[in-house]
Amino acid sequence: MTEMRTDQNKKEELQAENIRLNEEETAVVILDQTKLPGIREFLSLDTKEECFDAIKTLKVRGAPAIGIFAGYAMYVLAKQWEKLSVEEFIKKLTELGAYLNSARPTAVNLSWAVKRMLRVAESGPEKSDNSESAENRQRNAESVLTGQQTKEANSAAEIIARLGEEAKMIQAEDIAMCRKIAEYGLSVLKDGDGILTHCNAGPLATSCYGTALGPILLGHEQGMNLKVYADETRPLLQGARLTAYELEQAGVDVTLICDNMASIVMKNGWVDKVFVGCDRVAANGDAANKIGTSGVAILAKYYGIPFYVLGPSSTIDLDTPSGNEITIELRDPDEIKTMWYENPMAPEAVNCYNPSFDVTDHSLISGIITEKGIVYPPFEENLKELFS
Amino acid sequence: MTEMRTDQNKKEELQAENIRLNEEETAVVILDQTKLPGIREFLSLDTKEECFDAIKTLKVRGAPAIGIFAGYAMYVLAKQWEKLSVEEFIKKLTELGAYLNSARPTAVNLSWAVKRMLRVAESGPEKSDNSESAENRQRNAESVLTGQQTKEANSAAEIIARLGEEAKMIQAEDIAMCRKIAEYGLSVLKDGDGILTHCNAGPLATSCYGTALGPILLGHEQGMNLKVYADETRPLLQGARLTAYELEQAGVDVTLICDNMASIVMKNGWVDKVFVGCDRVAANGDAANKIGTSGVAILAKYYGIPFYVLGPSSTIDLDTPSGNEITIELRDPDEIKTMWYENPMAPEAVNCYNPSFDVTDHSLISGIITEKGIVYPPFEENLKELFS
Repeated sequence: MTEMRTDQNKKEELQAENIRLNEEETAVVILDQTKLPGIREFLSLDTKEECFDAIKTLKVRGAPAIGIFAGYAMYVLAKQWEKLSVEEFIKKLTELGAYLNSARPTAVNLSWAVKRMLRVAESGPEKSDNSESAENRQRNAESVLTGQQTKEANSAAEIIARLGEEAKMIQAEDIAMCRKIAEYGLSVLKDGDGILTHCNAGPLATSCYGTALGPILLGHEQGMNLKVYADETRPLLQGARLTAYELEQAGVDVTLICDNMASIVMKNGWVDKVFVGCDRVAANGDAANKIGTSGVAILAKYYGIPFYVLGPSSTIDLDTPSGNEITIELRDPDEIKTMWYENPMAPEAVNCYNPSFDVTDHSLISGIITEKGIVYPPFEENLKELFS
Repeated sequence: MTEMRTDQNKKEELQAENIRLNEEETAVVILDQTKLPGIREFLSLDTKEECFDAIKTLKVRGAPAIGIFAGYAMYVLAKQWEKLSVEEFIKKLTELGAYLNSARPTAVNLSWAVKRMLRVAESGPEKSDNSESAENRQRNAESVLTGQQTKEANSAAEIIARLGEEAKMIQAEDIAMCRKIAEYGLSVLKDGDGILTHCNAGPLATSCYGTALGPILLGHEQGMNLKVYADETRPLLQGARLTAYELEQAGVDVTLICDNMASIVMKNGWVDKVFVGCDRVAANGDAANKIGTSGVAILAKYYGIPFYVLGPSSTIDLDTPSGNEITIELRDPDEIKTMWYENPMAPEAVNCYNPSFDVTDHSLISGIITEKGIVYPPFEENLKELFS
């Protein structure tokens, strides 16, 4: 019983630790992801420069996590302008939004959250719907506001209160979405299952549960015995640094392996299901995810192990017919050759191919698990039915 | 033409650089493998302590390479005792053999080479047969000598001359064996082929050509255009440190990838054949090799790419019925978690599974290439026919 409590406490700490307000709501507290897993350092940020830097240098990372952080950052920084006129306040908040946005201009969730906070400041709280996709929320935030929607504030203090509520709502929505994915995912697991995962799709990238790790964390909370094999995920080692860390903190039985050990672990009969996250799912079910995912899927097929892709419905992209239309980002060869090493681990001038993602063919996927439910093959028909 | 010459020169340098005598034959010169690829340092060794240390600390590694090194070491050290009586000389040489052997007591090729050199000192040169397997040679070296075989030397100088010849013969036999494997392997390649390889089975582990890299180096010498994809091979990165180094030095077009990128490289249509080495091949064709090899074989099968295993006939073990009877060595988790990194790259206490090898099922193998020929399925029958 004591041990169970410890696990529960650890889990709550992990949920809360990633991004939160301090008690006085005057600073955003984040776990510095760049120092994990060697150093577990919390940063309390209350200047715009610190918040900008946290995004820029990946101290906070993961699309949903960046959105949540931006919401809280705008709220705590705005509190410092309580005595300004409404007009001056809005002007400064708009400048702040543009400044934060420039820290990672390509991060969709960052600009989405900044726009949402600005809209609330100008026109009152949005009518939030927890089941709404990030994409829809973004479209709403971008839409031209009608006069009727506008509800002007009488003071900066009033706007600040709205901003606080909205920022908390962004996080609450993310938690609710992850929770639903976790529940659907858990429905395919049974007590005693071994689960192999690749890369990191856990709480650190969101604010609670995560996507691929959600069902595992939820099952563990409910007392299930689950055993996880985490691919280290070269070159950036998100599996070793983040997934192994998150599961260990939560008290889940996790074993770290090199990516090339997935085959022997499956052959040993230790893996009952594979759970991975996703960056984009095409209309035919082809799924782009961290490099190496397609190899894991082929191994799972060979060994007869079900392979599940987990992600929010905002990653379902019905406008992309298949994986062939997904462009694969190529990254710096130094990530493979030198980045993590004291000494050169490869000839200095050697060619490297360093794709960031690969596409898993839909024929290798057993099911796609979203907050709206589980989609089974044939994916083309069933994705259209649920998401169009 | 100039570039071809350069490549040819590089190749010869690579052949010669691993283990050789200095010009005066007073020292063994080796390339320190522990410093590769960052530092290319040659060590000139002429004391028994230096030679012991080179074996012990893996400055020289790879089963055939250790045997060749031991032969040269005994020769150059014995030259320092030219003025001793035959009796005293043999006594000191026997002590030296035992001393060198204790540097890596489990290395079969080390004790084999030491015994062979001692036998030659005591009884005159062996009748060598280049096509003879290492196993047979070992049995001969271990056999009790008859009076007829014995040909006692009249002086230490005479024995020293024999030792020099024998040491050079050990290397010549290894080169001849690797050359034959290379020729058989080359017969399945065609100009323009892309070849994926895993781990290191190149010249550094032997003295020339190597096994899996042999056909590639030979084809390159003959002017073929071959493009190699080298898996980095976690956790010890033999692919990044040694294979990429060897191929680059030889002027072969090589691209380094992380192990988890093999799937996308195959999907891109860049791989026409897979070539890997082997540690042991069972009677049914199941092949044990560096961890990750079985995963590569499954990917090759999925993408319809021929998968070849290359090795000397001494690795064919007809006494082992299948891969199920091959014990997989488990190694230190720190190789995954900390060994290569400045900072901890995984939680300190996290479980790791670190198998050194895996077994590739014979159904995934297109052919087994040895110095005696290429064996195709059905392996059980065809291996028996060639090797029993």
